[in-house]
Amino acid sequence: MKFEVLFRSKKSRARVGRIHTPHGIIETPAFVPVGTNGALKALDSVAVSNLETQIMFCNTYHLMIQPGEDIIEKAGGLHKFMNRTGPIITDSGGFQVFSLLYGGVAQELKSKGTKKRDSGVVKITEEGVTFRSYRDGRKIEMTAETSIGAQKKIGADLIVAFDELPPYHLSPENLKKSFERTHRWEKRSLDAHKADPRNQAMYAVIHGGMDRQLRKKSCQILGDQDFDGFGIGGSVGKDCPEMLQLLTDIMPFVPDDRPNHLLGIADLPALAGAIPLGVDTFDSAHPTKCARHGMALTKFGGLRILKSGNEILMQPIEIGCECYTCQNYTVAYINHLFKAHEMSAYTLMTIHNLHYMNRLMKKYRQDILDGLI
Amino acid sequence: MKFEVLFRSKKSRARVGRIHTPHGIIETPAFVPVGTNGALKALDSVAVSNLETQIMFCNTYHLMIQPGEDIIEKAGGLHKFMNRTGPIITDSGGFQVFSLLYGGVAQELKSKGTKKRDSGVVKITEEGVTFRSYRDGRKIEMTAETSIGAQKKIGADLIVAFDELPPYHLSPENLKKSFERTHRWEKRSLDAHKADPRNQAMYAVIHGGMDRQLRKKSCQILGDQDFDGFGIGGSVGKDCPEMLQLLTDIMPFVPDDRPNHLLGIADLPALAGAIPLGVDTFDSAHPTKCARHGMALTKFGGLRILKSGNEILMQPIEIGCECYTCQNYTVAYINHLFKAHEMSAYTLMTIHNLHYMNRLMKKYRQDILDGLI
Repeated sequence: MKFEVLFRSKKSRARVGRIHTPHGIIETPAFVPVGTNGALKALDSVAVSNLETQIMFCNTYHLMIQPGEDIIEKAGGLHKFMNRTGPIITDSGGFQVFSLLYGGVAQELKSKGTKKRDSGVVKITEEGVTFRSYRDGRKIEMTAETSIGAQKKIGADLIVAFDELPPYHLSPENLKKSFERTHRWEKRSLDAHKADPRNQAMYAVIHGGMDRQLRKKSCQILGDQDFDGFGIGGSVGKDCPEMLQLLTDIMPFVPDDRPNHLLGIADLPALAGAIPLGVDTFDSAHPTKCARHGMALTKFGGLRILKSGNEILMQPIEIGCECYTCQNYTVAYINHLFKAHEMSAYTLMTIHNLHYMNRLMKKYRQDILDGLI
Repeated sequence: MKFEVLFRSKKSRARVGRIHTPHGIIETPAFVPVGTNGALKALDSVAVSNLETQIMFCNTYHLMIQPGEDIIEKAGGLHKFMNRTGPIITDSGGFQVFSLLYGGVAQELKSKGTKKRDSGVVKITEEGVTFRSYRDGRKIEMTAETSIGAQKKIGADLIVAFDELPPYHLSPENLKKSFERTHRWEKRSLDAHKADPRNQAMYAVIHGGMDRQLRKKSCQILGDQDFDGFGIGGSVGKDCPEMLQLLTDIMPFVPDDRPNHLLGIADLPALAGAIPLGVDTFDSAHPTKCARHGMALTKFGGLRILKSGNEILMQPIEIGCECYTCQNYTVAYINHLFKAHEMSAYTLMTIHNLHYMNRLMKKYRQDILDGLI
């Protein structure tokens, strides 16, 4: 992997760059859609590539459980298995352990850190995490070494160090404990990666929760090691303003010779706020999930496909949009497909929203070059 | 509409023909996939056309209930609404009334003609049928005139006369009663159509159940009227051999100057048996439903995608197949998509099965021309 910064804004920390991977170049800032199971929901891999999706995010945890990393390796790696010729990034599985414990980010924030009763997580030790497969109940032990081992077999271009995701609501002592353990796990992940690099690149994950001092320390600890890039992980705040304040405070300490990635966040206000702070890539299931829930993203704002009146709106989702959906179908028809529970509704909406996101990021890159950001 | 017979087999009643419609030519024998709601399940209209689907079958009853024929008319007709440039046929709604009463063909055969208790059908009179919408419970009256009125607004190339579908298990007296009423309804349908032809063509539906004499009489009554083609409807037997025997007995009486269509049946043995008997077109949801249930149709036989062993089968569904699915994905990957409940599994399987059916019909046409059938 090679990272070039092509242009740095004079107005902000925003930058335009290029990440070179074995499967192609990622122009940054870039949006990274999430294809958890080695597939974007409602859209096949070739269609995703045709939408000029530069890189896809897949989840190691899910792929380990189904179909299993051994089958993917037998297929010649995830690219061949899912027929994606462009770059792929896999996460470490750490986030899914958090989800098992707390039921996801929104739920953790709501519950103020109360763990789910029947979480599936058996125990967390210095070694790693033991949990039960949501499919067949079998015990799975996930450690830095098994996570990286699986990510080797899966064979994404970019892989992520195994970390623990401490919740937003955590006492300072417990945050400190998690912080130290996570950095030991990340070091072990890097060692496992270096022992068998396979032309992959490894991102560290910067931790420290809302504690600025810990975040800075994390940047320093991880920056001193031979990671190829940096994820910004863990809880970054209970809402967008809190997150942007945290990023404002910590982005100057994230090593800027390597690319960085904001993990799991890419809604529109987050992008608008974080790009000027120097974030390079963003993954999120949000735009594609919105699509399946009937919310189209357009340059005129969100369009609720089921909104009253839309059953007779004989125009595309976004007038002037060049996506396949807007070139071929009206709001009225897609509204009908939703009401008739036709699966193609999800596909057509996903195509539009993904096209929108890729177009939006292109515009962000141009705006930085044009001195507007 | 114009119908040409290009070639008649010397070995059988099989024929190769061309149905000219305002939206293009249908080469017969042809398979007609079913897009009940103005959409094939799991595939958008342009994708369906790209698979060289010559004609699609949509259901008037479903379209009347959602989105309603008035919205479709406002969109400029069903072709514009769903963005299909090729031919479309709509049925009359009569079959759905039967489904409401008996729960479908298989269920009626099993129940030996016992009506469903809570059928949604309020009453059947000389005028027509009153039933309750499955969506909002409102009463809908369907008559020859309202069915044709709706089919005018929907604007398919081929429309079908309103008929009653008597069940397999029916006393001779009741079959006779239904037979007479159905022919009165069909006559009224033709009158309504002729009063406002709109460049559409109307098919009659030949009835008479398993009674050969009634079937022949139906051919004569309807053949004497100015219908553009003939559907073969009602119960045609409890299994494939019974159906083929019935078709053997009645096909010589179906007017052969106009095209005919076997309603609702297009499984592989039915096609193989009915094409030599002179059937021109066949509609069925079977091949696309098979796809969504994980059964791929191939020249080597059916392939159950979830069959044990297929999780590591790194080859296309059908080696040598030129469909998008086989060109891009392996059985192992599609097996994984099914297990991971990814919608794209249904799309990819549907593409393959539809491609298979269209290729199969092409082969049937060639085989007739080559004197093999």
